[in-house]
Amino acid sequence: MKILIIGGAGMVGRKLSERLAKDGQLGGREISALTMYDVVAPTPPKGAAFKVHTATGDLPAKGETDRLVADKPDVIFHLAAIVSGEAEQEFDKGYRINLVGTQNLLESVRHTYEKDTKKPRVVFTSSIAVFGAPFPDKIGDEFFTTPLTSYGTQKAIGELLLADYTRKGMLDGIGIRLPTICVRPGTPNKAASGFFSNICREPLAGKEAVLPVSDDVMHWHASPRAGVGFLLHAATIDGEKVGTRRNLSMPGLAATVGQQIDALRKVGGEKVVARIRREPDPFIQKIVAGWPRNLDPKRALSLGFKADASFEDILRVHVEDELGGKIG
Amino acid sequence: MKILIIGGAGMVGRKLSERLAKDGQLGGREISALTMYDVVAPTPPKGAAFKVHTATGDLPAKGETDRLVADKPDVIFHLAAIVSGEAEQEFDKGYRINLVGTQNLLESVRHTYEKDTKKPRVVFTSSIAVFGAPFPDKIGDEFFTTPLTSYGTQKAIGELLLADYTRKGMLDGIGIRLPTICVRPGTPNKAASGFFSNICREPLAGKEAVLPVSDDVMHWHASPRAGVGFLLHAATIDGEKVGTRRNLSMPGLAATVGQQIDALRKVGGEKVVARIRREPDPFIQKIVAGWPRNLDPKRALSLGFKADASFEDILRVHVEDELGGKIG
Repeated sequence: MKILIIGGAGMVGRKLSERLAKDGQLGGREISALTMYDVVAPTPPKGAAFKVHTATGDLPAKGETDRLVADKPDVIFHLAAIVSGEAEQEFDKGYRINLVGTQNLLESVRHTYEKDTKKPRVVFTSSIAVFGAPFPDKIGDEFFTTPLTSYGTQKAIGELLLADYTRKGMLDGIGIRLPTICVRPGTPNKAASGFFSNICREPLAGKEAVLPVSDDVMHWHASPRAGVGFLLHAATIDGEKVGTRRNLSMPGLAATVGQQIDALRKVGGEKVVARIRREPDPFIQKIVAGWPRNLDPKRALSLGFKADASFEDILRVHVEDELGGKIG
Repeated sequence: MKILIIGGAGMVGRKLSERLAKDGQLGGREISALTMYDVVAPTPPKGAAFKVHTATGDLPAKGETDRLVADKPDVIFHLAAIVSGEAEQEFDKGYRINLVGTQNLLESVRHTYEKDTKKPRVVFTSSIAVFGAPFPDKIGDEFFTTPLTSYGTQKAIGELLLADYTRKGMLDGIGIRLPTICVRPGTPNKAASGFFSNICREPLAGKEAVLPVSDDVMHWHASPRAGVGFLLHAATIDGEKVGTRRNLSMPGLAATVGQQIDALRKVGGEKVVARIRREPDPFIQKIVAGWPRNLDPKRALSLGFKADASFEDILRVHVEDELGGKIG
């Protein structure tokens, strides 16, 4: 089977490609080729038994998505996006990549596979940013999408389009609303949610991190490992079981910043926690105040999607996967 | 004040223009000019004390929406749409008019009023077709939008865009999800919901009408008079009171086809009811099965939107407004 990852240079795309290389198969079918595409050059995973192509380009450019799907991949992961903070500050850029890019992809798939009985599975990563405050204590599966960011708006629109193209039989889409991925490895990106990871990753690596919100801010998390698990499950799940409601809130772990710090103390001790510097930022606070704290993702759980067990687990996985077991 | 009606040749646009002509003012401000725009020539209302311009064009064509808002109307009613049945059968046409047309309008407003402190009120008519079955008995204000038609998808996307542009201060939008307007005067259009009106209007005018669904189908209705009332209220309501959730399910009247027919019997007698011919249509039945039956529009009611009192009232208003009091 042929797989395409759009957004292959991002953290989730890279982790996904490494997992595919390790597994060599997806849903019991051998992987014959993987294409990783992004605006910057993706890094191919090591040790893959299949061919890996990498490509760069501008997703919403004319003809771009036609070229991307010309060789008819069986599974398309669409992970590419301008992140929340940047999409909020650069209105046109956010809409161009996050909306037009997604629209063009769906149109290209529609026309490229027009005469094929079997349509490709398109896994679209949406976000809990489709929800906007005020919320119930736990956001249920039937709660409405009233995003308070342009990023959340673009993701909510992507979900609607994905469901409509699927309903019309033009492709076979599954949208998954990822929790905030924590701990994100690497360097900070422009996501307004970046600090949730920064305050774990940087102190564990011996560096200072800035905390722009108060300790009682609760948020909804999943580890990169759990995130990749969601993607693989979304790529292989029986579409009939999912029905017409193709967009699912993924299971996650609700934790306050204070609980994150407590877990960090257990894993790394007081010296690690002391590296967090409190520096309130009204711009970040305002965005975060409009975000979900906790969800009740019954449907995804019943469909077999699996969350992390505890925030301590999330941190230990990070130390194991990213720091070779060594805390700074 | 200057008013623009996009979709001015449609039934709701025409009724709205007649009401504006009669009132001469909107929200206490005198109307100085009205522009009615549509793909076919709108009919100006009689007896208006203000200037009425009519214009025709292709809404999503390049530059079209820029020209439409160039003279900076204070209130813009965006009523234009390819209706549900047609948008379902003509996928590209539906997206072009209902999505691209709306996107272009919002972009033109954004840029035209960029330097103005006061942004225009944009009233967008959405639809209960944003909801998709299965439903709760009554659809609450926080129920999610999982449309089962492309039309409903396009309306749900329009709502999201309207809210985001409003949140960013680019315009001042209010989206109203109209119940099915019943009794629609005139001739049948391509809306899959057309029969709800046909079985009232045609028999009352002495003609036969086809009923393609069973008597127990329940649906959510508002008279043209109530619909115009929603538009006027949406045009003048204080945006601060509405807050960030700019899209509202309008109040309506839940009635089964059987209850419609009972009301028809009371208003017109058995000879009128006998003009309904039952002719089941699986295509219409399938679309209608995915539609809402009943809502619980608390927010709109608390914000002062008003529904019809009974289906009999709806029919009597139709006989009065459209048939000069005479039943055929």
